[in-house]
Amino acid sequence: MASKDSKDQDPRIAKISSAIRIIPDFPKPGIMFQDITTLLLDTKAFKDTIDLFVERYRDQNISVVAGVEARGFIFGPPIALAIGAKFVPMRKPKKLPGEVISEEYSLEYGTDKIEMHVGAVQPGERALVIDDLIATGGTLCAAIKLLERVGVNVVECACVIELPELKGREKLGGKSLFILVEGEGA
Amino acid sequence: MASKDSKDQDPRIAKISSAIRIIPDFPKPGIMFQDITTLLLDTKAFKDTIDLFVERYRDQNISVVAGVEARGFIFGPPIALAIGAKFVPMRKPKKLPGEVISEEYSLEYGTDKIEMHVGAVQPGERALVIDDLIATGGTLCAAIKLLERVGVNVVECACVIELPELKGREKLGGKSLFILVEGEGA
Repeated sequence: MASKDSKDQDPRIAKISSAIRIIPDFPKPGIMFQDITTLLLDTKAFKDTIDLFVERYRDQNISVVAGVEARGFIFGPPIALAIGAKFVPMRKPKKLPGEVISEEYSLEYGTDKIEMHVGAVQPGERALVIDDLIATGGTLCAAIKLLERVGVNVVECACVIELPELKGREKLGGKSLFILVEGEGA
Repeated sequence: MASKDSKDQDPRIAKISSAIRIIPDFPKPGIMFQDITTLLLDTKAFKDTIDLFVERYRDQNISVVAGVEARGFIFGPPIALAIGAKFVPMRKPKKLPGEVISEEYSLEYGTDKIEMHVGAVQPGERALVIDDLIATGGTLCAAIKLLERVGVNVVECACVIELPELKGREKLGGKSLFILVEGEGA
C-alpha cells in the first residue's frame, strides 16, 4: 500500500501503511480488500493512527465525532475521548433503538441506508465524520447529509485509507477529506 | 437502571447508570432495551466508563482485548489503547476478509455465529473479552470458546451492563464477569 506523498515526512505513516493487510478477491473476485484488522494488532501503529487524528482535531472545537458502522466504531471513540467530543454512531437500518433520521445511498446494485438518533446532535455543533476507508464515497456522503439536515457543521471527513481510483472524494460535495494512506485498486 | 451494589462507593457509576437510556419494546414488545448511545453523548460518563475498565485491567498483563460486534467495537479499542493491548474484532459471519475460525451460539430461535481471524492471537496470550451488555450470555460464551480453542487465556469478560434476570453469567463456564451496572428486565 502506498503512503500519501504529502505525509511521507511523518515516519509513523509508513508503519501504519505497512500494518494494513491486502486481501485479494474479497468480498468478491477482483477486489483488493484493505484489511485494517492487522493494524489493530500492531499496538504502536494503532496508537499512532489515533494520535495522528487527535493531533489534527484537538484544537478544532469539534464536539461530535460521528462514526460509520462498523469499522468507524473502532477508530471514532478513541478520537472522541481524546478531544473531549461525544461519539455518535451512524448505523445500518433497524439497529438504533430510539427515534432516527435516515439517509439512503447508492450501492453497486440497489441502495442502502444509514441512520442516526434524533437528538444525538444539536444545530450549530461542529462534527468530524470518521470511517476506516473511503471507496466510492457513498456512505460518507450520506453521513454528511444526515448531520447537515439537522444543522450540524461537518468540519471534515477522516479515513485511514483512501482508494483514489474510485474518486469517492468527489462525492463529498466539496467537504474536506483527511486520510493517512492511499490504497491501490478498486 | 440500578447500579451494582458493590460498586456504589464509586460516584462515577451512578452517573454512568443514569446516562444509559431505557427504550421500551425494542427490538420487540416486552423488551426494555438498554441504550448505551446516550452514554456516548455524555463525554464525562463515557470517559469514566473507559477509565473504570482501564483501572481494573492495566496491571493484569493483558495483551488482547477482544470486542464483540458491533457495540464491543466502541468500548474495546479505547481500553486496548490505554493498556497497550491489541484489539481483536469478533465479527458476524462473512465480515472478516481473512481466514477465520468461527463458533456458533444459540438465539431464541435458531443459531448465529461469530468469527475471529486466524493468527490474530497467539497461544498463551492473556485476553479480555468486552461487550456493552450481557443478556443470555450466548455471544460472550462463543467468544470465550473461540479464544480458548487457540490456546488463549481469557482473564475475564467485561460489560457495561448486565441483565441479571437472564442469568447469562452462568453461561460463561465459571469465567469471571466484571460489570458496571445492572439493568432490569429481560
